Amino acid sequence: MALRFTSEQRLDDGVLERRFTLGEIPGILWTPASASVSSPVPLILLGHPTLGLQKMYPRLAARARHAAADGFAAATIELPGSGERPRQAAVEPARAALRQAVQAGEPVSDEIIDALILPLVDQAVPEWQAALDALMALPEIGGPVGYSGGVISIGIRLAVVEPRIVAATLFAGSFVPRTMFEEARQVTIPLHVLLQWDDEGNDRQAALNLFDAFGSKEKSLHAHMGGHTGVPQFAGDAAAQFFIRHLT
Amino acid sequence: MALRFTSEQRLDDGVLERRFTLGEIPGILWTPASASVSSPVPLILLGHPTLGLQKMYPRLAARARHAAADGFAAATIELPGSGERPRQAAVEPARAALRQAVQAGEPVSDEIIDALILPLVDQAVPEWQAALDALMALPEIGGPVGYSGGVISIGIRLAVVEPRIVAATLFAGSFVPRTMFEEARQVTIPLHVLLQWDDEGNDRQAALNLFDAFGSKEKSLHAHMGGHTGVPQFAGDAAAQFFIRHLT
Repeated sequence: MALRFTSEQRLDDGVLERRFTLGEIPGILWTPASASVSSPVPLILLGHPTLGLQKMYPRLAARARHAAADGFAAATIELPGSGERPRQAAVEPARAALRQAVQAGEPVSDEIIDALILPLVDQAVPEWQAALDALMALPEIGGPVGYSGGVISIGIRLAVVEPRIVAATLFAGSFVPRTMFEEARQVTIPLHVLLQWDDEGNDRQAALNLFDAFGSKEKSLHAHMGGHTGVPQFAGDAAAQFFIRHLT
Repeated sequence: MALRFTSEQRLDDGVLERRFTLGEIPGILWTPASASVSSPVPLILLGHPTLGLQKMYPRLAARARHAAADGFAAATIELPGSGERPRQAAVEPARAALRQAVQAGEPVSDEIIDALILPLVDQAVPEWQAALDALMALPEIGGPVGYSGGVISIGIRLAVVEPRIVAATLFAGSFVPRTMFEEARQVTIPLHVLLQWDDEGNDRQAALNLFDAFGSKEKSLHAHMGGHTGVPQFAGDAAAQFFIRHLT
């Protein structure tokens, strides 16, 4: 798929923000002022939840500027079925069942989680790999590549199948299909896993089991107090240190 | 109890290392070159296991020099029954029972843990408080005070009873009497808790339960791979960042 830049602006800290399309998929690339053909920079792929790029923009831009300050480019693409992209028809029944379960205060069944997450992972992962192909072809982007946050099952699959990704920070904060525990055992790259201890939408024990399952020799779990969106500022600093260790 | 300096040496990084006695208790104080009457520095109390100061010296000195590089003084004292201090007679039967259980490959009972740890905490905590009295009277030591590592039950009790300690890093790596879980609920200062995920001498679930029990609004759990002594270098850096946030 061809990457086409559609707009660009220079942010006040010198970061170049460029919007692009990859085929039909919208995306954003941020590069630090220092990035150039003669000194290409490592890249961090910024994962995000299924709320759409427009809604997530402020948080993504903040993470990208943090990454740029450490000398990294950062990029993200819209997820299948999110934002202005067409809904994933196969997922709609599961989405309705999820709403119903949550409204009824019932636990979300494994069947609903599988039907919701697995088609998303199956479609998103090759798209992120295609984005990586296109971005790595840019002369100002070198390597290595890190993956950060977002839907954790996408991060797990990418860590298994994409050898260009050498380190990942994962956020244990979304539903995980049972088969992903098996994929987790195949992950070998260094991992930095964030867990919000009181995340109302997250099963803490399942998150601890998932951390235990990862096959990586270097993996750290950083648990902090608070709910899903309460990740403290200093947790971001620690994740940044992780990428500095592994991408530079 | 009176603090009496018995020796001093200037280390190659400018850190002043002074050995002292506090009554009959040996101790060591490290101060950064920058510490003076006109610019007193915060203090970190360095906890340690019951192996004796002499055996622990290399690791304690390394932690102290790291602290000094961040602008902190660091101090430690010998634990009751350790090093050259007289054995705690009350603890000897429990120590023998522990050895027996470990050699027989049996689980260590709650009764043994209580008999081993509670007398240690009861005697050690007032000693650390007395050390704090004496150290805070030195003109080059200001505040605030942090507590770091060592026997976790001593850290818990100190965090509850000693208001001069404003932040603590704790190492979930030793036996914890059941009553300490109740004391943990009374802790309110910011905590940074380290857990070695594969610590052979440590019950992981008990450590997670203990982390859950702490009453502190700000508490973080940092779990890393490896056994008891395998704490990675970068974990020390993250703990240092925690003290920089809370002591400066």
